[in-house]
Amino acid sequence: MRPSRRAPDELRKVSLERGVARYAEGSCLVKFGETHVLCTASLEERAPPWLRNSGKGWVTAEYSMLPRATHERTRREVTSGKPSGRTQEIQRLIGRSLRSVVDLTSIGEKQIVIDCDVLQADGGTRTAAITGGWVALHDCIQWMRSRSMLTGNPLKDHVAAVSCGIAGGQPVLDLDYAEDNGAETDANFVITGSGGLVEIQGTAEGKPFSEEEFLSLLRLAKGGVAQLVELQKLAVM
Amino acid sequence: MRPSRRAPDELRKVSLERGVARYAEGSCLVKFGETHVLCTASLEERAPPWLRNSGKGWVTAEYSMLPRATHERTRREVTSGKPSGRTQEIQRLIGRSLRSVVDLTSIGEKQIVIDCDVLQADGGTRTAAITGGWVALHDCIQWMRSRSMLTGNPLKDHVAAVSCGIAGGQPVLDLDYAEDNGAETDANFVITGSGGLVEIQGTAEGKPFSEEEFLSLLRLAKGGVAQLVELQKLAVM
Amino acid sequence: MRPSRRAPDELRKVSLERGVARYAEGSCLVKFGETHVLCTASLEERAPPWLRNSGKGWVTAEYSMLPRATHERTRREVTSGKPSGRTQEIQRLIGRSLRSVVDLTSIGEKQIVIDCDVLQADGGTRTAAITGGWVALHDCIQWMRSRSMLTGNPLKDHVAAVSCGIAGGQPVLDLDYAEDNGAETDANFVITGSGGLVEIQGTAEGKPFSEEEFLSLLRLAKGGVAQLVELQKLAVM
Amino acid sequence: MRPSRRAPDELRKVSLERGVARYAEGSCLVKFGETHVLCTASLEERAPPWLRNSGKGWVTAEYSMLPRATHERTRREVTSGKPSGRTQEIQRLIGRSLRSVVDLTSIGEKQIVIDCDVLQADGGTRTAAITGGWVALHDCIQWMRSRSMLTGNPLKDHVAAVSCGIAGGQPVLDLDYAEDNGAETDANFVITGSGGLVEIQGTAEGKPFSEEEFLSLLRLAKGGVAQLVELQKLAVM
Amino acid sequence: MRPSRRAPDELRKVSLERGVARYAEGSCLVKFGETHVLCTASLEERAPPWLRNSGKGWVTAEYSMLPRATHERTRREVTSGKPSGRTQEIQRLIGRSLRSVVDLTSIGEKQIVIDCDVLQADGGTRTAAITGGWVALHDCIQWMRSRSMLTGNPLKDHVAAVSCGIAGGQPVLDLDYAEDNGAETDANFVITGSGGLVEIQGTAEGKPFSEEEFLSLLRLAKGGVAQLVELQKLAVM
Amino acid sequence: MRPSRRAPDELRKVSLERGVARYAEGSCLVKFGETHVLCTASLEERAPPWLRNSGKGWVTAEYSMLPRATHERTRREVTSGKPSGRTQEIQRLIGRSLRSVVDLTSIGEKQIVIDCDVLQADGGTRTAAITGGWVALHDCIQWMRSRSMLTGNPLKDHVAAVSCGIAGGQPVLDLDYAEDNGAETDANFVITGSGGLVEIQGTAEGKPFSEEEFLSLLRLAKGGVAQLVELQKLAVM
Repeated sequence: MRPSRRAPDELRKVSLERGVARYAEGSCLVKFGETHVLCTASLEERAPPWLRNSGKGWVTAEYSMLPRATHERTRREVTSGKPSGRTQEIQRLIGRSLRSVVDLTSIGEKQIVIDCDVLQADGGTRTAAITGGWVALHDCIQWMRSRSMLTGNPLKDHVAAVSCGIAGGQPVLDLDYAEDNGAETDANFVITGSGGLVEIQGTAEGKPFSEEEFLSLLRLAKGGVAQLVELQKLAVM
Repeated sequence: MRPSRRAPDELRKVSLERGVARYAEGSCLVKFGETHVLCTASLEERAPPWLRNSGKGWVTAEYSMLPRATHERTRREVTSGKPSGRTQEIQRLIGRSLRSVVDLTSIGEKQIVIDCDVLQADGGTRTAAITGGWVALHDCIQWMRSRSMLTGNPLKDHVAAVSCGIAGGQPVLDLDYAEDNGAETDANFVITGSGGLVEIQGTAEGKPFSEEEFLSLLRLAKGGVAQLVELQKLAVM
Repeated sequence: MRPSRRAPDELRKVSLERGVARYAEGSCLVKFGETHVLCTASLEERAPPWLRNSGKGWVTAEYSMLPRATHERTRREVTSGKPSGRTQEIQRLIGRSLRSVVDLTSIGEKQIVIDCDVLQADGGTRTAAITGGWVALHDCIQWMRSRSMLTGNPLKDHVAAVSCGIAGGQPVLDLDYAEDNGAETDANFVITGSGGLVEIQGTAEGKPFSEEEFLSLLRLAKGGVAQLVELQKLAVM
Repeated sequence: MRPSRRAPDELRKVSLERGVARYAEGSCLVKFGETHVLCTASLEERAPPWLRNSGKGWVTAEYSMLPRATHERTRREVTSGKPSGRTQEIQRLIGRSLRSVVDLTSIGEKQIVIDCDVLQADGGTRTAAITGGWVALHDCIQWMRSRSMLTGNPLKDHVAAVSCGIAGGQPVLDLDYAEDNGAETDANFVITGSGGLVEIQGTAEGKPFSEEEFLSLLRLAKGGVAQLVELQKLAVM
Repeated sequence: MRPSRRAPDELRKVSLERGVARYAEGSCLVKFGETHVLCTASLEERAPPWLRNSGKGWVTAEYSMLPRATHERTRREVTSGKPSGRTQEIQRLIGRSLRSVVDLTSIGEKQIVIDCDVLQADGGTRTAAITGGWVALHDCIQWMRSRSMLTGNPLKDHVAAVSCGIAGGQPVLDLDYAEDNGAETDANFVITGSGGLVEIQGTAEGKPFSEEEFLSLLRLAKGGVAQLVELQKLAVM
Repeated sequence: MRPSRRAPDELRKVSLERGVARYAEGSCLVKFGETHVLCTASLEERAPPWLRNSGKGWVTAEYSMLPRATHERTRREVTSGKPSGRTQEIQRLIGRSLRSVVDLTSIGEKQIVIDCDVLQADGGTRTAAITGGWVALHDCIQWMRSRSMLTGNPLKDHVAAVSCGIAGGQPVLDLDYAEDNGAETDANFVITGSGGLVEIQGTAEGKPFSEEEFLSLLRLAKGGVAQLVELQKLAVM
């Protein structure tokens, strides 16, 4: 039995609330159970310097946690002078994941910044951020289209993410903090609406895992993402 | 006529929602109109080093804005390597204001950190943060009392804050962003429940102001704070 | 009786010595008793970036203390990697105060930097810096006028500053370090030659103060600034 | 045909030279073709603070490139003030990988630091660093055992790493820079001597990849790591 | 003819004014012509960590320029986040020079910090700082002796410094800024009262110099330092 | 007898291996006994900003040590946020020394960066770096000439460096770490192929040195550099 009494292949209660930020071009408050992430999309008129005169745009992400999103208060990174390695790793992952479903040429030399601020953390913040970030990105692109800033639709597919792990010897979907802490293996999967794999990150905590175990996690992830994509479709309808 | 059609001595719609952060010892989502600040209180077992062996505790505050709390996205301070002067000025003000109504000796050698994170900004974020921060602080102290960590009540009074300014030649209460931007004079007042003055900060934007003008702002502020204190009382009832 | 045996409304011995820095366009060594601040004005050919093509110039200030300006040696801020919050707060105050009496459009797209370096500190360094900074600024503007870089006079008025406080239950003018340390309330006033209020900053140390107390401080400040302005007039004659 | 004319499942020429650093407790100059990484192991008498009194030790890694390890000179990170996100990601990966085969309790409260300095880079620096880092770690542990600092052998298994990718539509092993640059999918695998999976990181560059493609990469990786482990065995014989 | 009309072996007008800083244990305002440096000595109760339990003390120096000490205003180093290489090189030189005449064991586990702040710069700031720093150090040691903190006299000798160079093909003593700028060779000499050499730093600007030329600079320096030592003796009499 | 059993005027075994870095325009692995420094020369298309439109180029150097180049592991400077004073002092010395034999105008508006990375340190790393850096610079200039990027030869002379010191009361050449540590006086000499002096840096460790002692060091240095220059000639033949 999982601590949350969920079935092994059961997601937490997920909600995707759009339009929560008054000034942003797109926004979504995503909840995976007690994990709450506020995602906003900001359109910036200038692409990063390395794209100048390329005709291409960019989608990037930033990630942060409020200090008391966690059980114990965590220090603000501003006082340590730089984002931690973990923060940078996560924001690079979110950015790459969202870019995998965007035609950057259609955006033109602009940049969309997806800010993912964790209001409350109970495991799986990066997967929630990717899933909710897609909604914010979608709405930002709609905002641009409604102002005739785009001719086609640069958003080619859905993308969502979920964590899986082996906990108590059993492969389980969408770990919360309590489960994640004790898991032997922890993996994050980023998968598109059409089932393409975008990112796979599996890490043994302690003892290495077998190929078989890994494949069972992949199966769980595909089922979980399919559900998340359905929720995204409902959200932006 | 004010841009918001409020009377000169009329506050924006204010709400104080308690208990919004699952893990914090006290929390309050404060709204002054479209200005929304999430205040959490975190109890830390250790007072700052300079109070070691003094028997006294400390209350401090940190302040930050989400990047897209504003019309234009603002850069995260973490990437500039330090909190800006403005941020530091504000968090010092919030800390001083809340400490003015706390008996630090009764707390013992502990520290309460009030985090004020602006989710959405429409002027007056620091005054909202002080007003809502008091509620979070109150609840943290209640949490301590209910666990018999305190004998008496270290919270001696209410404290709240409001901005006033001269806009369009007229003294007005609780400026929003549009009004603040065009105001000739801008002042923040921090006042206790019993009417004591804790902080007065008045700044001429452009042309200096007269003593008379200043006194009319002070009168408005006293009325505004009295209403805010009533709302605090209702919130923690 | 005040520790310095001064009357409640008596300034410390103030001197304003011009022309002390060989290379600066304007300079003033200001002394408020044992508080000594070297103020220099440097003309820079370029206004800050945000004023480009605005036709307007800028006046800004930087503030620092020599390490042994104080009783105990203080660490240089360079080794901590950033100006402290206190330093930033002070230099923003000096800059705003001086800009309040300058017509920035008449300066053209140039910048005047007022450096205020505290050689010796005995309380009231920021008020001394504003008072002496005005003299350095005046001389820089004279230097520009004598080279026909200006047609009119962008300096519209005097501005000076003084601290007041309630010490030993009594409102007193121009606190030195010993008095400031024990004061219940501490306030800084920046006032123009024609009596306009530019900045008011009042802070309760410990117990809040009453409106009446505050008004008595304001009265003292107005008298003190009037004397400082007379000394400025003598200095630049 | 691959640019290097290798077969799809052919490693580059790999060499592992031990004992190359006069002062280090263990060292290995690892070459994967034109990728050369100098790995040193340094024994430190103190474990990190969070392990104090736990009886456990730690293995960590640091990673850096010489400025002219690359085609174009890259700036030293010291002048940008912090390790880049990429550097931090890599050094965390190397550390986790090596720890997966070490019994940290047997080491006692000590720390072994594996420094991986890339002298020349031609793709696959992180996988070379893990593979060579294991040799340096092995020799450091031998050094400790020969001084009777350890009773048992904390090194439980081999661990090595290799990259795979889909380039020109074909799954290939151990990409060099030219191949990596054009690859559609890029994956790193860290695998133990007994075939356990430690880390899997797969990233689509551009177009998502299918489950089938991913499994073919995993098969290549298992074959490649088996060869690398044989070379490690020869090296430390 | 030198630009300053001085003879080749003629120092600028030098003055050494003691007791200029109210709070410091020793102080000296040293002037080498238009180069003015304020030197203060601060006694700190604790030696640096690496001397703990050694019974030895330390003498160190810090060096800084006021922004408008120079013809053009220079940026404060605090805003660049670290002391420049030049600043660090100079403060290490000053510290080493002064330590060469101090018996660090007699001081006990204390530290004396010599702060050298350049109020005005016209070449030779480091040599002025060493020469004036010695006076501040002397007075600090006197201060300690008069409080019976020392039994013997840890100050074993005088030390002073001067620059020499080849300008216009001619070896000259004590270069000012104008002369230094055009000099072919620039050298700094730190020499004790008894004629011992402490530091020699000679640098060719452009064309290398000959041994003969170098020896003529050394002769000039010995004469110059002898005069500076006489002035130190008068100053501390 | 010296610890290394060398004669007082005997260099360590010196080798200069060219062409060791695949991508660099010039490179040299220099060994002075157990001191090993990898020097690479990188041609950059742009001169530093202050040379824009001057028609002149620049030669600069950067210096770093691998963490385990030393007996005890040293922390990477990247984690302290800036190059240490010692590092900056050394890299400025290397740059000045190499520029003394280059006609910067013949290079055109380009920059050559000499990276000196110490793989193993046993004293004299800066002198080895200058000596080997010259070879890397030479080869970079040959590379440019062979591509007709230069008409004449901007390299006007050889330059090499060696340390001398007084150890055990005796003047000795080319100190290794053991000898350097106990030396009373330590001096570095940078001398051209034609015997011109470029840099002289002599420092008393503890007791000052006499003019005579200094001259004996200079004689040793001239002999040592003459040998190093012969080795450079052989290396680039």
